[in-house]
Amino acid sequence: MEKIKVYADQLKKNLTDALCSHGLDKEGAAVVAGVYYRATLRGVGHHEIDSLPDRYIYLDNGQTNPRPDIKKIGGMGAMELYDGDNGMGELCTMHVTEKSMDLAKEHGIGFATIRNSNHFLAAAPYTEYAEEKGFFTTVMSKSPAGLSLPGADKDLMGNNPFGYSASADDSSLLFDICFAYSSYGKMGKYIKEGKSIPEYWGRDKEGKPTTNPQDVMDSQLFMPMAEHKGFGLAIWVEMMSSVLAGGNILNQDENETGLRGNYSQTAISINVEKLLGPGEFS
Amino acid sequence: MEKIKVYADQLKKNLTDALCSHGLDKEGAAVVAGVYYRATLRGVGHHEIDSLPDRYIYLDNGQTNPRPDIKKIGGMGAMELYDGDNGMGELCTMHVTEKSMDLAKEHGIGFATIRNSNHFLAAAPYTEYAEEKGFFTTVMSKSPAGLSLPGADKDLMGNNPFGYSASADDSSLLFDICFAYSSYGKMGKYIKEGKSIPEYWGRDKEGKPTTNPQDVMDSQLFMPMAEHKGFGLAIWVEMMSSVLAGGNILNQDENETGLRGNYSQTAISINVEKLLGPGEFS
Repeated sequence: MEKIKVYADQLKKNLTDALCSHGLDKEGAAVVAGVYYRATLRGVGHHEIDSLPDRYIYLDNGQTNPRPDIKKIGGMGAMELYDGDNGMGELCTMHVTEKSMDLAKEHGIGFATIRNSNHFLAAAPYTEYAEEKGFFTTVMSKSPAGLSLPGADKDLMGNNPFGYSASADDSSLLFDICFAYSSYGKMGKYIKEGKSIPEYWGRDKEGKPTTNPQDVMDSQLFMPMAEHKGFGLAIWVEMMSSVLAGGNILNQDENETGLRGNYSQTAISINVEKLLGPGEFS
Repeated sequence: MEKIKVYADQLKKNLTDALCSHGLDKEGAAVVAGVYYRATLRGVGHHEIDSLPDRYIYLDNGQTNPRPDIKKIGGMGAMELYDGDNGMGELCTMHVTEKSMDLAKEHGIGFATIRNSNHFLAAAPYTEYAEEKGFFTTVMSKSPAGLSLPGADKDLMGNNPFGYSASADDSSLLFDICFAYSSYGKMGKYIKEGKSIPEYWGRDKEGKPTTNPQDVMDSQLFMPMAEHKGFGLAIWVEMMSSVLAGGNILNQDENETGLRGNYSQTAISINVEKLLGPGEFS
């Protein structure tokens, strides 16, 4: 495969233009481009710009709303609930990330959740952004069913990604996982690279452990990390996002409308300086 | 072993009396007895009244303060920070559980954290109590180092237990784990029952995988669940509790005073009814 050199700043501009050409307004396109820019600079090799072609399909065929009217529909005090109007998950999640920081400025902690959203790509771009602004922020997402259990013949629960960021003077930490041993994106990378997987990562169509990542992609039987522990953590994210937001839960993967919008996200920001005083959080 | 029949109500009274005889005042003893009562009724077989004899030792030899002066020392709005004055972890954790609910009543969400605390026994008694009062509450604890990593020759991080409770009309859910494959309590139960463990649960003194639980108890090399994923989640609890509370972190297991008080706990309560309206959270 031929390598192409891409300059980071140029990438951001190109992404913004491309998103505009798929229907987003300039402001929204810049937000989404910023998310992909951060994700891609991490260099993980999945959950980055390789996810964009699918996003364009959903925008072009009307399954995702390019210009959502994101509305506050509930909450009190330090806790707010939004409807994402079936907009891109990157737009919706950045919206609640910003809101959670606004709330944390006023109340010390801020909790903002959004339903009727779409795939947020990954947690890291949002938590990293919030961390640069001085908050300790945790971001999580309910995703469509991507997690099974030993003995089950289908996926029952989202793998429900979760992440946070922190840094001190001379080091930084970015944590961004889902509660399966492997996400779809990571499994796809193993397939592309011809690698085998540990046999506890998933099951084949007969429900048997397998070391072939394609078997798991075909069966969709992704196993939760550490068995019941990972499954229970995925339920917690489900509660903290889609259940509290009143969004789709479990394997309710389609709206009655046939549109997408089956994700919910939650951001929790903590105003560290107000708890410990400046400079003490390191 | 001969079985003894104990009536639940009698148990609560006996526990209260016993705790008073080890120096607690009546009010504090009733709170701690309530925690052990709930934990014991779960019937899990560990993290229940079998932990009390150790607690009595710490109370009797002055390592734990039987009548702590728990003080608010920081915070703003929906977020409060307490010092536990080296009191029993059960007292300290119930204190922040109550405070988080008070805050959630006023602000929608409440975050209360406490440092200079001790072992809280388990998360479930607090989350179950809060759930009965109508809150969706998550409780977590920094604990002394009980989690290692492949290649490390000692424990580096607390196994940092985490739990939540929820219920609907006809079902209920109680989730209460630590981020090692096995806690100390569970490992002890395997030893007592002469059972072997999966070889990925821990390492022996030479750093090699072992199926003998006694090897792990001797080496103290407990492995994090799902490798880096469990380790990163333990760091998150560390951040959300001891780092934000300004308490002991990582393997700072002793205070300079030689006293205990090396735990921190955090309770986050969500006022579900104010977010979704009555009856919608099920």
